[in-house]
Amino acid sequence: MPKPIGFYFDFLSPYGYLGSVGIERIGERTGRGVDWRPMLLGISVLKVMGLPAGPDIPMKGPYAARDWQRTARWMKVPFDPHANTRAKSLSAMRAFAWIQGRDPEQARVFARRLFVAHWADGHDLSETETVASVAAEVGLDADKCLAAIQGDAAKQALRDAVDASLERGVFGCPTFEVGGELFWGVDKLEQVEDWIRTGGW
Amino acid sequence: MPKPIGFYFDFLSPYGYLGSVGIERIGERTGRGVDWRPMLLGISVLKVMGLPAGPDIPMKGPYAARDWQRTARWMKVPFDPHANTRAKSLSAMRAFAWIQGRDPEQARVFARRLFVAHWADGHDLSETETVASVAAEVGLDADKCLAAIQGDAAKQALRDAVDASLERGVFGCPTFEVGGELFWGVDKLEQVEDWIRTGGW
Repeated sequence: MPKPIGFYFDFLSPYGYLGSVGIERIGERTGRGVDWRPMLLGISVLKVMGLPAGPDIPMKGPYAARDWQRTARWMKVPFDPHANTRAKSLSAMRAFAWIQGRDPEQARVFARRLFVAHWADGHDLSETETVASVAAEVGLDADKCLAAIQGDAAKQALRDAVDASLERGVFGCPTFEVGGELFWGVDKLEQVEDWIRTGGW
Repeated sequence: MPKPIGFYFDFLSPYGYLGSVGIERIGERTGRGVDWRPMLLGISVLKVMGLPAGPDIPMKGPYAARDWQRTARWMKVPFDPHANTRAKSLSAMRAFAWIQGRDPEQARVFARRLFVAHWADGHDLSETETVASVAAEVGLDADKCLAAIQGDAAKQALRDAVDASLERGVFGCPTFEVGGELFWGVDKLEQVEDWIRTGGW
Protein backbone atom coordinates (compact mmCIF):
# COMPACT_ATOMS: atom_id res chain seq x y z
CA MET A 1 0.00 0.00 0.00
CA PRO A 2 1.56 3.33 -1.00
CA LYS A 3 1.58 6.01 1.67
CA PRO A 4 -1.08 8.74 1.56
CA ILE A 5 -0.12 12.13 0.17
CA GLY A 6 1.30 14.39 2.87
CA PHE A 7 -0.46 17.74 3.06
CA TYR A 8 1.11 20.49 5.18
CA PHE A 9 -1.31 23.29 5.97
CA ASP A 10 -2.00 26.36 8.06
CA PHE A 11 -5.66 27.41 8.23
CA LEU A 12 -4.77 31.09 7.80
CA SER A 13 -3.58 30.57 4.22
CA PRO A 14 -6.05 31.06 1.35
CA TYR A 15 -3.72 29.03 -0.84
CA GLY A 16 -3.80 26.36 1.86
CA TYR A 17 -7.58 26.25 1.54
CA LEU A 18 -7.39 25.88 -2.25
CA GLY A 19 -4.67 23.28 -1.80
CA SER A 20 -6.84 21.32 0.63
CA VAL A 21 -9.64 21.04 -1.90
CA GLY A 22 -7.25 20.23 -4.76
CA ILE A 23 -5.26 17.59 -2.90
CA GLU A 24 -8.38 15.85 -1.57
CA ARG A 25 -9.60 15.59 -5.17
CA ILE A 26 -6.28 14.04 -6.17
CA GLY A 27 -6.24 11.78 -3.12
CA GLU A 28 -9.62 10.48 -4.19
CA ARG A 29 -8.87 10.16 -7.93
CA THR A 30 -5.64 8.27 -7.29
CA GLY A 31 -6.90 6.27 -4.32
CA ARG A 32 -3.95 7.47 -2.24
CA GLY A 33 -5.79 9.49 0.37
CA VAL A 34 -4.37 12.48 2.21
CA ASP A 35 -2.44 12.73 5.47
CA TRP A 36 -3.06 16.20 6.97
CA ARG A 37 -0.03 17.70 8.75
CA PRO A 38 0.05 21.03 10.59
CA MET A 39 2.63 23.72 9.90
CA LEU A 40 2.65 27.35 11.03
CA LEU A 41 3.47 30.15 8.61
CA GLY A 42 4.11 32.44 11.58
CA ILE A 43 7.03 30.20 12.51
CA SER A 44 8.44 29.21 9.12
CA VAL A 45 8.04 32.50 7.23
CA LEU A 46 8.41 35.08 9.97
CA LYS A 47 10.87 33.35 12.31
CA VAL A 48 12.92 30.81 10.37
CA MET A 49 13.03 32.54 6.99
CA GLY A 50 12.93 36.07 8.42
CA LEU A 51 10.45 37.30 5.81
CA PRO A 52 7.45 39.61 6.22
CA ALA A 53 3.91 38.21 6.06
CA GLY A 54 2.71 37.73 2.49
CA PRO A 55 0.02 40.44 2.47
CA ASP A 56 2.59 42.99 3.73
CA ILE A 57 4.97 42.55 0.80
CA PRO A 58 4.75 45.37 -1.78
CA MET A 59 3.43 44.28 -5.19
CA LYS A 60 3.36 40.59 -4.22
CA GLY A 61 0.61 41.13 -1.63
CA PRO A 62 -1.89 42.73 -4.04
CA TYR A 63 -0.98 40.22 -6.76
CA ALA A 64 -1.64 37.29 -4.45
CA ALA A 65 -5.02 38.68 -3.35
CA ARG A 66 -6.10 38.76 -6.98
CA ASP A 67 -4.47 35.45 -7.82
CA TRP A 68 -6.05 33.29 -5.13
CA GLN A 69 -9.53 34.42 -6.15
CA ARG A 70 -8.74 33.83 -9.82
CA THR A 71 -7.30 30.41 -8.99
CA ALA A 72 -10.40 29.60 -6.91
CA ARG A 73 -12.63 30.33 -9.93
CA TRP A 74 -10.35 28.27 -12.16
CA MET A 75 -10.57 25.33 -9.74
CA LYS A 76 -14.30 25.92 -9.28
CA VAL A 77 -13.84 26.25 -5.53
CA PRO A 78 -16.22 28.57 -3.62
CA PHE A 79 -14.32 31.52 -2.18
CA ASP A 80 -15.63 34.40 -0.06
CA PRO A 81 -14.01 37.65 -1.26
CA HIS A 82 -14.61 39.13 2.20
CA ALA A 83 -12.86 36.36 4.12
CA ASN A 84 -10.42 37.63 6.74
CA THR A 85 -6.99 37.25 5.14
CA ARG A 86 -5.23 38.15 8.38
CA ALA A 87 -6.80 35.52 10.58
CA LYS A 88 -5.02 34.09 13.62
CA SER A 89 -4.93 30.34 13.27
CA LEU A 90 -3.30 29.21 16.51
CA SER A 91 -6.47 28.07 18.30
CA ALA A 92 -7.79 26.30 15.23
CA MET A 93 -4.45 24.59 14.64
CA ARG A 94 -4.28 23.46 18.27
CA ALA A 95 -7.77 22.08 17.99
CA PHE A 96 -6.76 20.14 14.91
CA ALA A 97 -3.64 18.73 16.60
CA TRP A 98 -5.69 17.72 19.63
CA ILE A 99 -8.39 16.00 17.55
CA GLN A 100 -5.81 14.29 15.36
CA GLY A 101 -4.21 12.70 18.41
CA ARG A 102 -7.54 11.02 19.19
CA ASP A 103 -9.02 10.36 15.75
CA PRO A 104 -7.12 11.29 12.56
CA GLU A 105 -10.13 10.77 10.30
CA GLN A 106 -12.31 13.03 12.44
CA ALA A 107 -9.52 15.61 12.43
CA ARG A 108 -9.43 15.53 8.63
CA VAL A 109 -13.17 16.13 8.38
CA PHE A 110 -12.87 18.91 10.95
CA ALA A 111 -10.06 20.57 9.00
CA ARG A 112 -11.85 20.43 5.66
CA ARG A 113 -14.96 22.00 7.19
CA LEU A 114 -13.03 24.65 9.06
CA PHE A 115 -11.25 25.72 5.87
CA VAL A 116 -14.64 26.04 4.14
CA ALA A 117 -16.24 27.84 7.10
CA HIS A 118 -13.57 30.52 6.96
CA TRP A 119 -12.74 30.86 3.27
CA ALA A 120 -16.17 30.28 1.76
CA ASP A 121 -18.93 30.57 4.37
CA GLY A 122 -18.35 33.92 6.05
CA HIS A 123 -17.04 32.76 9.43
CA ASP A 124 -13.70 33.71 10.98
CA LEU A 125 -11.46 30.97 12.28
CA SER A 126 -9.72 33.47 14.56
CA GLU A 127 -12.88 33.26 16.71
CA THR A 128 -12.98 30.29 19.02
CA GLU A 129 -16.77 30.16 18.45
CA THR A 130 -16.08 29.18 14.85
CA VAL A 131 -13.64 26.47 15.94
CA ALA A 132 -16.11 25.15 18.51
CA SER A 133 -19.10 25.12 16.18
CA VAL A 134 -17.18 23.23 13.48
CA ALA A 135 -16.01 20.79 16.15
CA ALA A 136 -19.65 20.26 17.12
CA GLU A 137 -20.60 19.74 13.45
CA VAL A 138 -18.20 16.82 13.20
CA GLY A 139 -19.55 15.21 16.36
CA LEU A 140 -17.25 16.59 19.04
CA ASP A 141 -18.27 18.23 22.28
CA ALA A 142 -17.74 21.95 21.62
CA ASP A 143 -16.98 22.84 25.25
CA LYS A 144 -14.51 20.00 25.58
CA CYS A 145 -12.80 21.19 22.42
CA LEU A 146 -12.61 24.76 23.69
CA ALA A 147 -11.12 23.57 26.97
CA ALA A 148 -8.64 21.36 25.15
CA ILE A 149 -7.33 24.28 23.05
CA GLN A 150 -6.13 25.88 26.29
CA GLY A 151 -4.57 22.68 27.56
CA ASP A 152 -0.95 21.58 27.47
CA ALA A 153 -1.67 18.45 25.46
CA ALA A 154 -3.01 20.40 22.47
CA LYS A 155 -0.18 22.93 22.64
CA GLN A 156 2.43 20.19 22.78
CA ALA A 157 0.81 18.21 19.98
CA LEU A 158 0.90 21.25 17.70
CA ARG A 159 4.47 22.10 18.71
CA ASP A 160 5.60 18.58 17.85
CA ALA A 161 3.87 18.67 14.48
CA VAL A 162 5.34 22.06 13.60
CA ASP A 163 8.83 20.92 14.63
CA ALA A 164 8.40 17.90 12.36
CA SER A 165 7.34 20.13 9.46
CA LEU A 166 10.43 22.32 9.87
CA GLU A 167 12.69 19.31 10.15
CA ARG A 168 11.18 18.07 6.90
CA GLY A 169 12.03 21.42 5.24
CA VAL A 170 8.44 22.64 4.89
CA PHE A 171 8.37 26.43 4.68
CA GLY A 172 5.24 27.37 2.73
CA CYS A 173 1.58 26.50 2.52
CA PRO A 174 0.33 24.41 0.90
CA THR A 175 3.15 21.87 0.71
CA PHE A 176 2.51 18.37 -0.60
CA GLU A 177 4.71 15.31 -0.04
CA VAL A 178 4.71 12.33 -2.33
CA GLY A 179 7.31 9.58 -2.22
CA GLY A 180 9.70 11.77 -0.24
CA GLU A 181 9.37 14.72 -2.66
CA LEU A 182 8.05 18.07 -1.48
CA PHE A 183 5.97 20.27 -3.76
CA TRP A 184 5.20 23.82 -2.63
CA GLY A 185 2.23 25.82 -3.84
CA VAL A 186 -1.27 25.20 -5.09
CA ASP A 187 0.07 25.62 -8.63
CA LYS A 188 2.02 22.37 -8.12
CA LEU A 189 -1.09 20.16 -8.03
CA GLU A 190 -0.59 19.08 -11.64
CA GLN A 191 2.98 17.94 -10.93
CA VAL A 192 1.85 16.18 -7.73
CA GLU A 193 -0.73 14.14 -9.63
CA ASP A 194 1.77 13.34 -12.40
CA TRP A 195 4.31 12.23 -9.78
CA ILE A 196 1.77 9.86 -8.25
CA ARG A 197 0.65 8.44 -11.59
CA THR A 198 4.15 8.00 -13.06
CA GLY A 199 6.14 7.22 -9.92
CA GLY A 200 8.32 10.27 -10.51
CA TRP A 201 10.76 11.48 -13.16
CA MET B 1 -5.46 40.40 -33.88
CA PRO B 2 -5.00 39.61 -30.16
CA LYS B 3 -1.87 40.96 -28.55
CA PRO B 4 1.09 38.62 -28.04
CA ILE B 5 1.65 37.17 -24.58
CA GLY B 6 3.78 39.45 -22.41
CA PHE B 7 6.77 37.69 -20.92
CA TYR B 8 8.75 39.47 -18.20
CA PHE B 9 12.17 37.94 -17.62
CA ASP B 10 15.56 38.34 -16.01
CA PHE B 11 18.30 36.11 -17.44
CA LEU B 12 19.63 35.28 -13.97
CA SER B 13 16.51 33.32 -13.05
CA PRO B 14 16.42 29.55 -13.67
CA TYR B 15 12.63 29.73 -13.45
CA GLY B 16 12.81 32.51 -16.05
CA TYR B 17 14.65 30.13 -18.38
CA LEU B 18 12.05 27.41 -17.89
CA GLY B 19 9.32 30.01 -18.34
CA SER B 20 10.89 31.20 -21.59
CA VAL B 21 10.75 27.71 -23.08
CA GLY B 22 7.24 27.08 -21.78
CA ILE B 23 5.76 30.37 -22.95
CA GLU B 24 7.31 30.10 -26.41
CA ARG B 25 5.66 26.69 -26.74
CA ILE B 26 2.32 28.22 -25.75
CA GLY B 27 2.86 31.22 -28.01
CA GLU B 28 3.35 28.83 -30.89
CA ARG B 29 0.48 26.44 -30.04
CA THR B 30 -1.99 29.28 -29.65
CA GLY B 31 -0.63 31.43 -32.47
CA ARG B 32 -0.33 34.39 -30.09
CA GLY B 33 3.42 34.82 -30.10
CA VAL B 34 5.46 36.24 -27.24
CA ASP B 35 6.51 39.80 -26.42
CA TRP B 36 9.73 39.67 -24.37
CA ARG B 37 9.97 42.36 -21.67
CA PRO B 38 12.93 42.93 -19.35
CA MET B 39 12.59 43.13 -15.59
CA LEU B 40 15.33 43.02 -12.93
CA LEU B 41 14.99 40.86 -9.84
CA GLY B 42 17.74 42.91 -8.18
CA ILE B 43 15.40 45.90 -8.31
CA SER B 44 12.00 44.33 -7.66
CA VAL B 45 12.94 41.75 -5.03
CA LEU B 46 15.87 43.38 -3.26
CA LYS B 47 14.93 47.07 -3.50
CA VAL B 48 11.16 47.42 -3.91
CA MET B 49 10.06 44.38 -1.92
CA GLY B 50 12.96 44.47 0.51
CA LEU B 51 13.47 40.71 0.43
CA PRO B 52 16.70 38.69 0.34
CA ALA B 53 17.78 36.94 -2.87
CA GLY B 54 16.02 33.61 -3.38
CA PRO B 55 19.04 31.32 -2.89
CA ASP B 56 19.81 33.06 0.44
CA ILE B 57 16.46 32.26 2.04
CA PRO B 58 16.64 29.37 4.53
CA MET B 59 14.67 26.27 3.46
CA LYS B 60 13.22 27.99 0.39
CA GLY B 61 16.62 28.28 -1.31
CA PRO B 62 17.47 24.56 -1.15
CA TYR B 63 13.88 23.65 -2.09
CA ALA B 64 14.00 25.86 -5.17
CA ALA B 65 17.32 24.42 -6.33
CA ARG B 66 15.77 20.96 -6.30
CA ASP B 67 12.48 22.13 -7.74
CA TRP B 68 13.76 23.90 -10.84
CA GLN B 69 15.72 20.83 -11.89
CA ARG B 70 12.72 18.59 -11.25
CA THR B 71 10.48 20.99 -13.17
CA ALA B 72 13.00 21.07 -16.04
CA ARG B 73 12.82 17.26 -16.29
CA TRP B 74 9.03 17.38 -16.14
CA MET B 75 8.95 19.94 -18.97
CA LYS B 76 11.66 18.02 -20.86
CA VAL B 77 13.86 21.09 -20.96
CA PRO B 78 17.66 20.59 -20.92
CA PHE B 79 19.14 21.99 -17.72
CA ASP B 80 22.79 22.11 -16.62
CA PRO B 81 23.01 21.23 -12.92
CA HIS B 82 26.29 23.15 -12.73
CA ALA B 83 24.90 26.40 -14.14
CA ASN B 84 25.85 29.47 -12.12
CA THR B 85 22.76 30.28 -10.06
CA ARG B 86 24.26 33.56 -8.86
CA ALA B 87 24.97 35.09 -12.23
CA LYS B 88 25.01 38.85 -12.78
CA SER B 89 22.61 39.64 -15.58
CA LEU B 90 23.03 43.40 -16.03
CA SER B 91 25.24 43.31 -19.15
CA ALA B 92 23.09 40.66 -20.79
CA MET B 93 19.90 42.56 -19.99
CA ARG B 94 21.38 45.78 -21.39
CA ALA B 95 22.38 43.95 -24.54
CA PHE B 96 18.83 42.67 -24.89
CA ALA B 97 17.32 46.14 -24.40
CA TRP B 98 19.72 47.61 -26.93
CA ILE B 99 19.00 44.93 -29.55
CA GLN B 100 15.25 45.15 -28.94
CA GLY B 101 15.29 48.86 -29.72
CA ARG B 102 16.68 48.03 -33.17
CA ASP B 103 15.05 44.69 -34.00
CA PRO B 104 12.60 43.05 -31.57
CA GLU B 105 12.60 39.72 -33.42
CA GLN B 106 16.39 39.53 -33.36
CA ALA B 107 16.30 40.40 -29.65
CA ARG B 108 13.90 37.54 -29.02
CA VAL B 109 16.17 35.05 -30.79
CA PHE B 110 19.14 36.45 -28.88
CA ALA B 111 17.34 36.08 -25.56
CA ARG B 112 16.24 32.52 -26.19
CA ARG B 113 19.78 31.51 -27.11
CA LEU B 114 21.34 33.33 -24.19
CA PHE B 115 19.02 31.57 -21.74
CA VAL B 116 20.05 28.22 -23.25
CA ALA B 117 23.76 29.12 -23.34
CA HIS B 118 23.69 29.80 -19.60
CA TRP B 119 21.19 27.32 -18.21
CA ALA B 120 21.85 24.35 -20.48
CA ASP B 121 25.14 24.74 -22.36
CA GLY B 122 27.74 25.45 -19.70
CA HIS B 123 28.40 29.15 -20.38
CA ASP B 124 28.03 31.99 -17.89
CA LEU B 125 26.00 35.01 -18.88
CA SER B 126 27.84 37.09 -16.27
CA GLU B 127 30.77 37.02 -18.71
CA THR B 128 30.54 39.59 -21.47
CA GLU B 129 32.24 37.03 -23.78
CA THR B 130 29.12 34.88 -23.52
CA VAL B 131 26.89 37.83 -24.32
CA ALA B 132 29.08 38.80 -27.28
CA SER B 133 29.32 35.32 -28.71
CA VAL B 134 25.55 34.80 -28.56
CA ALA B 135 25.12 38.20 -30.21
CA ALA B 136 27.44 37.03 -32.99
CA GLU B 137 25.46 33.79 -33.33
CA VAL B 138 22.31 35.74 -34.13
CA GLY B 139 24.05 37.89 -36.72
CA LEU B 140 25.17 40.90 -34.71
CA ASP B 141 28.62 42.40 -34.61
CA ALA B 142 30.07 41.18 -31.30
CA ASP B 143 32.33 44.18 -30.76
CA LYS B 144 29.55 46.62 -31.51
CA CYS B 145 27.34 44.81 -29.03
CA LEU B 146 30.04 44.92 -26.33
CA ALA B 147 30.53 48.64 -26.92
CA ALA B 148 26.77 49.22 -26.84
CA ILE B 149 26.44 47.55 -23.42
CA GLN B 150 28.62 50.31 -21.99
CA GLY B 151 26.73 53.07 -23.75
CA ASP B 152 24.04 55.36 -22.40
CA ALA B 153 21.43 54.23 -24.92
CA ALA B 154 21.48 50.60 -23.71
CA LYS B 155 21.44 51.66 -20.08
CA GLN B 156 18.52 54.01 -20.62
CA ALA B 157 16.59 51.44 -22.67
CA LEU B 158 16.89 48.89 -19.87
CA ARG B 159 16.00 51.46 -17.23
CA ASP B 160 12.84 52.41 -19.13
CA ALA B 161 11.82 48.78 -19.53
CA VAL B 162 12.39 48.00 -15.86
CA ASP B 163 10.43 51.09 -14.80
CA ALA B 164 7.57 49.91 -17.01
CA SER B 165 7.68 46.45 -15.43
CA LEU B 166 7.45 47.93 -11.93
CA GLU B 167 4.63 50.24 -12.95
CA ARG B 168 2.82 47.20 -14.27
CA GLY B 169 3.24 45.48 -10.88
CA VAL B 170 5.71 42.84 -12.03
CA PHE B 171 7.78 41.59 -9.09
CA GLY B 172 8.87 38.05 -9.94
CA CYS B 173 10.29 36.04 -12.79
CA PRO B 174 8.81 34.64 -14.91
CA THR B 175 5.69 36.78 -15.12
CA PHE B 176 3.27 36.36 -18.01
CA GLU B 177 0.65 38.88 -19.14
CA VAL B 178 -2.45 37.91 -21.07
CA GLY B 179 -5.39 40.23 -21.64
CA GLY B 180 -4.27 42.51 -18.83
CA GLU B 181 -3.87 39.65 -16.33
CA LEU B 182 -0.52 38.91 -14.71
CA PHE B 183 0.50 35.35 -13.88
CA TRP B 184 3.62 34.83 -11.81
CA GLY B 185 5.68 31.66 -11.85
CA VAL B 186 6.53 28.86 -14.24
CA ASP B 187 3.87 26.76 -12.48
CA LYS B 188 1.26 29.15 -13.91
CA LEU B 189 1.79 28.05 -17.52
CA GLU B 190 -1.30 25.82 -17.45
CA GLN B 191 -3.51 28.73 -16.30
CA VAL B 192 -1.94 31.03 -18.89
CA GLU B 193 -2.80 28.66 -21.71
CA ASP B 194 -6.33 28.15 -20.36
CA TRP B 195 -6.80 31.92 -20.11
CA ILE B 196 -5.80 32.33 -23.76
CA ARG B 197 -8.01 29.49 -24.97
CA THR B 198 -11.09 30.44 -22.93
CA GLY B 199 -10.74 34.22 -22.87
CA GLY B 200 -10.56 34.17 -19.07
CA TRP B 201 -12.84 33.19 -16.21
